[in-house]
Amino acid sequence: MTRSRPIPRSGAPDILRPPPDATPARRRAYEVVFGHESSLGRLFDVVLIAVILLSVAAVLVESIPRYRADWGQELRILEWIFTGIFTIEYGVRLWCVGRPGRYARSFFGLVDLAAILPSYLSLLLPGGQVLAVVRILRVLRVFRILKLAHYVGEANLLGRALRASRYKITVFLFAVVTVVVVVGSVMYLIEGPESGFTSIPVGMYWAVVTLTTVGFGDITPVTPWGQLLASCLMIMGYGIIAVPTGIVTAELTLASRSDRAAPTTPPGRMVCPDCRLDDHLPDAGHCRHCGTALVREVASQ
Amino acid sequence: MTRSRPIPRSGAPDILRPPPDATPARRRAYEVVFGHESSLGRLFDVVLIAVILLSVAAVLVESIPRYRADWGQELRILEWIFTGIFTIEYGVRLWCVGRPGRYARSFFGLVDLAAILPSYLSLLLPGGQVLAVVRILRVLRVFRILKLAHYVGEANLLGRALRASRYKITVFLFAVVTVVVVVGSVMYLIEGPESGFTSIPVGMYWAVVTLTTVGFGDITPVTPWGQLLASCLMIMGYGIIAVPTGIVTAELTLASRSDRAAPTTPPGRMVCPDCRLDDHLPDAGHCRHCGTALVREVASQ
Amino acid sequence: MTRSRPIPRSGAPDILRPPPDATPARRRAYEVVFGHESSLGRLFDVVLIAVILLSVAAVLVESIPRYRADWGQELRILEWIFTGIFTIEYGVRLWCVGRPGRYARSFFGLVDLAAILPSYLSLLLPGGQVLAVVRILRVLRVFRILKLAHYVGEANLLGRALRASRYKITVFLFAVVTVVVVVGSVMYLIEGPESGFTSIPVGMYWAVVTLTTVGFGDITPVTPWGQLLASCLMIMGYGIIAVPTGIVTAELTLASRSDRAAPTTPPGRMVCPDCRLDDHLPDAGHCRHCGTALVREVASQ
Amino acid sequence: MTRSRPIPRSGAPDILRPPPDATPARRRAYEVVFGHESSLGRLFDVVLIAVILLSVAAVLVESIPRYRADWGQELRILEWIFTGIFTIEYGVRLWCVGRPGRYARSFFGLVDLAAILPSYLSLLLPGGQVLAVVRILRVLRVFRILKLAHYVGEANLLGRALRASRYKITVFLFAVVTVVVVVGSVMYLIEGPESGFTSIPVGMYWAVVTLTTVGFGDITPVTPWGQLLASCLMIMGYGIIAVPTGIVTAELTLASRSDRAAPTTPPGRMVCPDCRLDDHLPDAGHCRHCGTALVREVASQ
Repeated sequence: MTRSRPIPRSGAPDILRPPPDATPARRRAYEVVFGHESSLGRLFDVVLIAVILLSVAAVLVESIPRYRADWGQELRILEWIFTGIFTIEYGVRLWCVGRPGRYARSFFGLVDLAAILPSYLSLLLPGGQVLAVVRILRVLRVFRILKLAHYVGEANLLGRALRASRYKITVFLFAVVTVVVVVGSVMYLIEGPESGFTSIPVGMYWAVVTLTTVGFGDITPVTPWGQLLASCLMIMGYGIIAVPTGIVTAELTLASRSDRAAPTTPPGRMVCPDCRLDDHLPDAGHCRHCGTALVREVASQ
Repeated sequence: MTRSRPIPRSGAPDILRPPPDATPARRRAYEVVFGHESSLGRLFDVVLIAVILLSVAAVLVESIPRYRADWGQELRILEWIFTGIFTIEYGVRLWCVGRPGRYARSFFGLVDLAAILPSYLSLLLPGGQVLAVVRILRVLRVFRILKLAHYVGEANLLGRALRASRYKITVFLFAVVTVVVVVGSVMYLIEGPESGFTSIPVGMYWAVVTLTTVGFGDITPVTPWGQLLASCLMIMGYGIIAVPTGIVTAELTLASRSDRAAPTTPPGRMVCPDCRLDDHLPDAGHCRHCGTALVREVASQ
Repeated sequence: MTRSRPIPRSGAPDILRPPPDATPARRRAYEVVFGHESSLGRLFDVVLIAVILLSVAAVLVESIPRYRADWGQELRILEWIFTGIFTIEYGVRLWCVGRPGRYARSFFGLVDLAAILPSYLSLLLPGGQVLAVVRILRVLRVFRILKLAHYVGEANLLGRALRASRYKITVFLFAVVTVVVVVGSVMYLIEGPESGFTSIPVGMYWAVVTLTTVGFGDITPVTPWGQLLASCLMIMGYGIIAVPTGIVTAELTLASRSDRAAPTTPPGRMVCPDCRLDDHLPDAGHCRHCGTALVREVASQ
Repeated sequence: MTRSRPIPRSGAPDILRPPPDATPARRRAYEVVFGHESSLGRLFDVVLIAVILLSVAAVLVESIPRYRADWGQELRILEWIFTGIFTIEYGVRLWCVGRPGRYARSFFGLVDLAAILPSYLSLLLPGGQVLAVVRILRVLRVFRILKLAHYVGEANLLGRALRASRYKITVFLFAVVTVVVVVGSVMYLIEGPESGFTSIPVGMYWAVVTLTTVGFGDITPVTPWGQLLASCLMIMGYGIIAVPTGIVTAELTLASRSDRAAPTTPPGRMVCPDCRLDDHLPDAGHCRHCGTALVREVASQ
């Protein structure tokens, strides 16, 4: 009886187009760099993702002391080669797209820029090149190569589930922050600096570690009263961790159900012309109540 | 088939009113301090929440040894300024409301009082000013400024979900306490004081830490039998942590569904023209109470 | 459309009765000790639960070294007083019930026996009196005093949810054991005794600690490969912890739904005598399809 | 309204048969080794599982230093006896089955081979015999002895739930990897080697440990900014851990419901007498495909 709300399966954001008066070269560049229908475009995407993964791996490897000592020089050169490739690619994207400003401000445009900035930043601020790991976000493009629609649909589903729960999540987060502030302060009072609770913010850090059931154990209560309060907090944490799970699950259950009905609902909702019964299965040809042949109403939206 | 029970979306508790014979000044003060329709009332709320957050931040900062050493004096003066502001505000609220006793005993009245008490308490009991962090509860007023109804509705939904599960939760908590007492005692017997299990209450603390999957690691079993029992407890903890999640989720799913059913009730809600019963199943053609044929009322909202 | 299966709300197990030819004294003792309708019976239950809680508290307190040093003698005397009370009570229960053997083998009979055995056991086996904490199970009787039916109903609901999931849970537990054995062995191979993985059983203990997200941190991988495998195990643990939660939640959602319909279903399922539609709301007096007045069929079971 | 999709309860894979021209001895061997209908076949299965469990236990015990020192020689001999038994059994299976190649490549065939390889491997690679614990997988055969269909059905249900969620899980895993890479790098920048964050991969390991709420505590943030970021990560981890739980639960709820719908279909399953369509809604009076009036078939099971 839950009405399957129309789901905007918007697919890829195709607002980016080559300029209408583009030269053939520019139009060709657009197809290769942005498109994923032509075989060259798909090859470009595959190579790009391989290069992205390699460049992230290089940053990771460079951070390991032993490898930096042995191959530091080589890794730094490799890093600049990757940065060069991404800079050229970013330039080509800006050049071949119809509205460069719009691309530059789009999500993927910002990610592409963020992928090259850290290397240049490291010239001013040593160590900044570590931030180049945000390149991992560029791998999001991989979803374009795989069967896109599925992933966009599922991401939309998760997104909608979160959006539908935004008020519940706000109430929940406020409750968590309140509990953390109050418990952190009380533990600071009870345990004091000897047990590691050196300040209220440290107590709040401990409260978060405990409430989320992470439990590092770097700071732990040692007094009986502290352990009693901690036990209550942990059992309460049971209930608290149940809330976001419950929220997400309830939304996903509802969304899945309406989703499962949706893809097969053909354009137009069926209503029996005789008895007006309207919750027919998607493949019904006759009303299950009176047997009248069904006609499909054209959906208005 | 789940009957959508009428939901009391009671909104803000407006039982507090200015006295009927209030002077214009008092009536005006009421509008500013309690109201959130007038622009001055909204401004007051925003400023108040900023002051609350600042005062909580001051308490947090004061607890950090380094900052207390440098700015201890200034922070203590700031603390008294905030206390002064909240005391005056509390006085104004008492003065401009029609029934001060009722306000003082209401939830917000108690929170407002709790926000100023710790500072005065610290004159008698050094260190008590830390309790001023309960001021964070005053930030609950923020929900009045934002679109209130949504949050109240969602908080109601969560509250009803918990209320509907109260018997399940009692059974669950009793099971947890029993497991904790028994396992804590057995671990005390198996491991003994050398492993840190110095008494049964400490063993119970460890059992809570383990069962809730927090796992600080400050006390851990070291004997093979202790580790075996701990492993069984942890795997059982799987099932136990699943129960509150399942309870909350099941309630939220049911609540969300009946909640959602209302807005999507299709064109016209059925009300029996004879007995005015109005929660019929969607495919009902006759009132299940009196058998009268049903007509669809056009929804007004 | 899910048929609400008839739920056996069996209530308290009233198979125990006084013997038919009991003397008035015996019959009176039965009413006080087993009954909870008469005011004396209720008083007996309340006092009994208070004594049980006190005796458990005494065991807990005795285990704390400081208190044992100071009041060890007094606590041991108290312990024997409680044991005496429970022994007499057990004797009275055996005497006044019609079939003592049946009571002795019932769940509550075994719990009552288990509550007095540890004290006598401690005469042979020093330290065994700690097991007296199983007395906490006797507090289960508290559910008899409170509104019993609710709790029995909810416990039944949880029990049925678990029973309905028994095959899923078996498959799940087998998967967990397999993962634990294999991962524990591989970690033993990778990390070796230097990192604390001194044997495969220790590796399995670590795998359980990790998979259940408890994470004590008493044993942790230190080699890169060990940390990589541990990371995979933890992310897999995400999925594995989701399964019992999913199972319990799915069962509770289904059970809650049918349960919510059930308690109000009056003795006898309604079927429309005219059109045989049979899924009416519990308060329906007329068929919602054809308007015919409904009659209640007497339930056969 | 969810259509109960026909569920392939495929049961045991019976593609393996004795060769059509098998001698009686070979046919008899097939029945004992592969069959589980004859009493000898069932006895063989029970003995086999006992031997498997014993051989796994032997590997576990051998890894414990104390027992290896005392009974190392005996355990190694036992190990070779078990390997001999399993090798002979593998040979018999290859001999009596109709298509040995097909058996050798089937799931159980590979498991059977994997169960004997580690012992022979240990001749070349000392220590490799630890891998013999994969024999635990052979215990999967136990499901053949117990009521198989139930477990296969439930495993199918879990499998389908996972399969139906594969796109959601991919999106989820990608989000987790991205968060882990970015947070691991930022923590490496903030905390540095002094706190134990010696490289980005170590930071990623810490991020996984934290995000999954395992929280070993072997590496923990010590700077205020590190603790703040860790707190945000942990609270975010709340939401992230809710997603797989939500996905699995939503799928299981839907699957359970459609699964349960089948057995409770009330007296007589409706099949259209004209087009044989058989999954009508419970209140259908006419076939939704062709409009023919429906009659209820008496359920045969």
